Amino acid sequence: MNQNFLLQTPLSQELYHICAKDLPLIDFHNHLSVADLANDRRFENITALWVASDPYKHRAMRMCGVPEKYITGDASDFEKFAAWCRVYPRLVGTPLYHWTQMELSRVFGIEELPSENNAKELWDKINALLKLPEFSTNSILAKFNVEYSAPCAALLDDLSIFEGTKNTAPSLRGDDVVAPSKAFLEKLADITKVSVKDMESLKAALSKRLDVFHAMGTRFSDHALDNGFSYLPDDGKNDARLQAILDGNALTEADTIALRSAILVLLGNLYAARGWTMQLHIGAQRFTSSRLRSLAGAAGGFASIGSPTEISSLTSLLDDVEKTDAGLPRVILFPLNPADNAAMAVLSGSYSKDGISGLVQQGPAWWWCDHLTGMYEVFESVSAYSVLSNFVGMTTDSRSILSFVRHDYFRRALCNWIGNKAEAGVFPKDVKALAPMVKAMCYGNAKERLG
Amino acid sequence: MNQNFLLQTPLSQELYHICAKDLPLIDFHNHLSVADLANDRRFENITALWVASDPYKHRAMRMCGVPEKYITGDASDFEKFAAWCRVYPRLVGTPLYHWTQMELSRVFGIEELPSENNAKELWDKINALLKLPEFSTNSILAKFNVEYSAPCAALLDDLSIFEGTKNTAPSLRGDDVVAPSKAFLEKLADITKVSVKDMESLKAALSKRLDVFHAMGTRFSDHALDNGFSYLPDDGKNDARLQAILDGNALTEADTIALRSAILVLLGNLYAARGWTMQLHIGAQRFTSSRLRSLAGAAGGFASIGSPTEISSLTSLLDDVEKTDAGLPRVILFPLNPADNAAMAVLSGSYSKDGISGLVQQGPAWWWCDHLTGMYEVFESVSAYSVLSNFVGMTTDSRSILSFVRHDYFRRALCNWIGNKAEAGVFPKDVKALAPMVKAMCYGNAKERLG
Amino acid sequence: MNQNFLLQTPLSQELYHICAKDLPLIDFHNHLSVADLANDRRFENITALWVASDPYKHRAMRMCGVPEKYITGDASDFEKFAAWCRVYPRLVGTPLYHWTQMELSRVFGIEELPSENNAKELWDKINALLKLPEFSTNSILAKFNVEYSAPCAALLDDLSIFEGTKNTAPSLRGDDVVAPSKAFLEKLADITKVSVKDMESLKAALSKRLDVFHAMGTRFSDHALDNGFSYLPDDGKNDARLQAILDGNALTEADTIALRSAILVLLGNLYAARGWTMQLHIGAQRFTSSRLRSLAGAAGGFASIGSPTEISSLTSLLDDVEKTDAGLPRVILFPLNPADNAAMAVLSGSYSKDGISGLVQQGPAWWWCDHLTGMYEVFESVSAYSVLSNFVGMTTDSRSILSFVRHDYFRRALCNWIGNKAEAGVFPKDVKALAPMVKAMCYGNAKERLG
Repeated sequence: MNQNFLLQTPLSQELYHICAKDLPLIDFHNHLSVADLANDRRFENITALWVASDPYKHRAMRMCGVPEKYITGDASDFEKFAAWCRVYPRLVGTPLYHWTQMELSRVFGIEELPSENNAKELWDKINALLKLPEFSTNSILAKFNVEYSAPCAALLDDLSIFEGTKNTAPSLRGDDVVAPSKAFLEKLADITKVSVKDMESLKAALSKRLDVFHAMGTRFSDHALDNGFSYLPDDGKNDARLQAILDGNALTEADTIALRSAILVLLGNLYAARGWTMQLHIGAQRFTSSRLRSLAGAAGGFASIGSPTEISSLTSLLDDVEKTDAGLPRVILFPLNPADNAAMAVLSGSYSKDGISGLVQQGPAWWWCDHLTGMYEVFESVSAYSVLSNFVGMTTDSRSILSFVRHDYFRRALCNWIGNKAEAGVFPKDVKALAPMVKAMCYGNAKERLG
Repeated sequence: MNQNFLLQTPLSQELYHICAKDLPLIDFHNHLSVADLANDRRFENITALWVASDPYKHRAMRMCGVPEKYITGDASDFEKFAAWCRVYPRLVGTPLYHWTQMELSRVFGIEELPSENNAKELWDKINALLKLPEFSTNSILAKFNVEYSAPCAALLDDLSIFEGTKNTAPSLRGDDVVAPSKAFLEKLADITKVSVKDMESLKAALSKRLDVFHAMGTRFSDHALDNGFSYLPDDGKNDARLQAILDGNALTEADTIALRSAILVLLGNLYAARGWTMQLHIGAQRFTSSRLRSLAGAAGGFASIGSPTEISSLTSLLDDVEKTDAGLPRVILFPLNPADNAAMAVLSGSYSKDGISGLVQQGPAWWWCDHLTGMYEVFESVSAYSVLSNFVGMTTDSRSILSFVRHDYFRRALCNWIGNKAEAGVFPKDVKALAPMVKAMCYGNAKERLG
Repeated sequence: MNQNFLLQTPLSQELYHICAKDLPLIDFHNHLSVADLANDRRFENITALWVASDPYKHRAMRMCGVPEKYITGDASDFEKFAAWCRVYPRLVGTPLYHWTQMELSRVFGIEELPSENNAKELWDKINALLKLPEFSTNSILAKFNVEYSAPCAALLDDLSIFEGTKNTAPSLRGDDVVAPSKAFLEKLADITKVSVKDMESLKAALSKRLDVFHAMGTRFSDHALDNGFSYLPDDGKNDARLQAILDGNALTEADTIALRSAILVLLGNLYAARGWTMQLHIGAQRFTSSRLRSLAGAAGGFASIGSPTEISSLTSLLDDVEKTDAGLPRVILFPLNPADNAAMAVLSGSYSKDGISGLVQQGPAWWWCDHLTGMYEVFESVSAYSVLSNFVGMTTDSRSILSFVRHDYFRRALCNWIGNKAEAGVFPKDVKALAPMVKAMCYGNAKERLG
């Protein structure tokens, strides 16, 4: 890979090489396997490392008509790898085309691109490398200069597994908290020794549990507000709804929405009190093909993008959190539908807190939007509707340790985008004026959130 | 017209001239007059051929304040042509500006652009050409190298008219099927000799009728899911709804939606069983000005673009079709609102079938989106959210035989877009790597669907 | 500021310098203080002129964490100015970055950009200038070559204040008319000497009052259709709703929507009869942070962008206005959510009136969209979905007299955009063909509306 890959202007190149390239990585939200990190896993072959658990590749293979046998089925690992290689040349234009190129080059020093013709050769070459100690999980990670990495953990997960890891802290995945089952509430009570029977005691229990996460280094939480997200303000009936759950009764959909709304407000308050950042992942349509769901599991790569977000629900949620004693925590909005970009970016001007820059802001292009086009669109939108220099920067949200190359992809995209803006006379053509912004966006702004 | 019109980079030019320009056309969805084709119509003058039946031109003239008299009124054909020429120079930036230029150049060898000043001269010149045998309908078509053209036909239309045509097969327009009237059901029963009394017998009748279309070469159907489209899953009451129609009763809106949903699923199943492609034209707002509707008819060029699509309705529809015995047919999504582009393109990763590339995919920029900006946006969106090399390619969806120049417009746009991506380092700067993609997108992928 | 600021191509520069730069300004919708104009106010210092009343700057400062004390609080004017200067360098990419640069250069001849370092120096320098007679309100305005400026006035405002102004006429802000209170209706009756008791007498009273505005030079009205706008057609019960208000009763939400719908139709009819232009500002989400609302007032810069517009409500409203005896007035649509751009631009082809170009059209990028990206997006959308040469041109919608530089910003953006299109072969590379369009868009089309 050319060292100036994607960097079209001299200023883009200068910004990248001088300001961005060598900064450490802060990856504040991902789905890495903590077990792999703790055990410094050695991958048995390239399929196990690179294909078997990557829903993006599965998705691309399905789009190209690859039989499911070679994706999630009983084909051999080599057959699956070969199927992936066969599909690769058709993926020009997709993010996978660049990611693959960067991963092979950066991690394995391989400049050849996969194809039907070289599948066997790549298989042998990479598998041989994987036998070497410098390709264990942690050795690979070390190449990337990761300063802080935050794999998701659910509230009631056993966190002891994190103890064997380095530069790693849990990111709280809060979805089961806002839609609590009876079992969840009982386990929460059990773990925290707080008898959970109403919203107040729920808050006390959650607060205790968050302290445990905080002690482990947690500074980020996240919640999925899926397609159709709707917010209902407190109607005074949430104690009764909690009690209904504890009594083993199912809630109506309206009651579920109301209780979720109230718990989101409660959690927002607790996050603010601890200086955490609350991530909202907004607008996924997770139910599409029932067939693929049963075949590949809930996270099998077949989700899609929902309709534009009901903004009034989002503003009411943020408003109600702001009304609590601790006010708003830092909030990062991750809209999945790019049609929401402007509405999300502009919300950064709608809430504020003395002394905190970028309190509410749109985050990096997420999931299906995490490609060059998506990154450029987010830069454009945040720049025009918000304040770009406050941008929190990249996070991979990935299951794969190779995905850390995406920070480099982000940095190249950013520097290229800024260089082109300067070339057009829109940004100052002045490294000194732009350098602080680039450094803040690639590292400094995220670093500030670690507290 | 310069041979490198719109082609900005050397690679763009090379791709266009070497790979794209000379491929045959497959126009899988249009509204050509089959009678004109069958009779090899000679047009009496340029207004009859070019202006009288073109809602795009009517629309543009209205936007420029041309009195309706010169559009659909009782002005003479020359007056109407002159009114169109007068408006033309003001249309810089619209697709009509380029289409007109290309049509005059390609079909009539005229390089002058219309204006108030040359209206009479153009009128005389073109009318003289139209008297020549090489400007009959089929002679014009022959210039375009059309391999397959599919004008719409309704399910109960007399198809014998297609027998006098060449390279032409009906495309099934299914709108009256999914909202059946009593008369429709009776005529269907009459034609197919199947007594239609419930969903099962409806399916049998439709199946028989589709076989007749299939024998005529039909491989594509289409359905309009207009603004506000909503899907209701089967509730077991559709036999009763059909019976209500047969009894001469009107359905409620909710019943209409439910029955339409069920018939769409049923048809999707029948299309899949025959290897057809199901086109969904999504999100038109057809009711705008009542005045223009009464003046110019339902298809008079005054429709607009509806709000973004309810994605959960679309995913449920596709899911329920996939659950049938034949699974999903190939589906092409044509969103009219470009704010839906990402959500539509990404759906290609949400459904799959072993051995079929691009099973569900976004189609070419449709109707009001069919312009250079719209095409570039679709390339961008399909490339980033789906797999560009699977793209089915252009279709005109037009009433005019001159519109086949839009395939050339599409090919220039595509080659230019790809060349620019390569120039920016995003695509490989390599004709050999890109040629198969260009050929597939301009011809091969559509050809594959002809079976 | 370089004279070719933002102008990338030779053609862009030629169009700007020859066709656009020196045209007079028509600013058909703004929020200038009529009292300041009438009194030819001298501003006591740069904060009073430039920072204290500018919600855009307040918003940007909040996004950068500036304590509210230095925004709306009790800090001194110098401290507030210094806080603004400190934030400025971080605003690269925002419209404020360019606006500030242009305002300092054009009005004060200052080429230095604000920063922490030069705050005191700028404060002294500009305050000294403000003491000179050539920096009074009207003297500043004179620099801008304003031919027509239209600050908002409510229907029942005392218009005598406009008598001391030059080139200034009220623009009717109609929000209290469509949601009338009892007091409003009584005052209307009082002023017009028409007893208001039903829709017919309301129409008579409004008609009389509009005549007064018309005599003052009013040719533009505007209405806010905020996020969630919904239209209900006339159900014959609006007399009763009016009576309920007169009886002192509160309306339900549904009744409020129905009555608003009917009054919008009635007003549209009255505007059409007078040749006025009806502006619709669509989709603001004005309620976000209750805290900032209580702190900074309803217009304090914390509003956001709502969800995409319900297009069927908008088309029904326009259709019902068109059905009245006067038909549609000219309508300018200002969507706040750029995801609505295509749907709005395309509506220009959905309604028409003999002899009037651009009857319904999308207006210039509004409010949070009023930046370089937003302008380019509107040009792109209007060009592709409508007819660019009919575009009504820029209006500031601003509270600040310095904002007239935004006309220059608009003209540069337009000429640059067109020049780039010509460079790409999309527009004719021909000043003669493009000059009429540029002049019409910067001045002529707005001028035509003054009647």
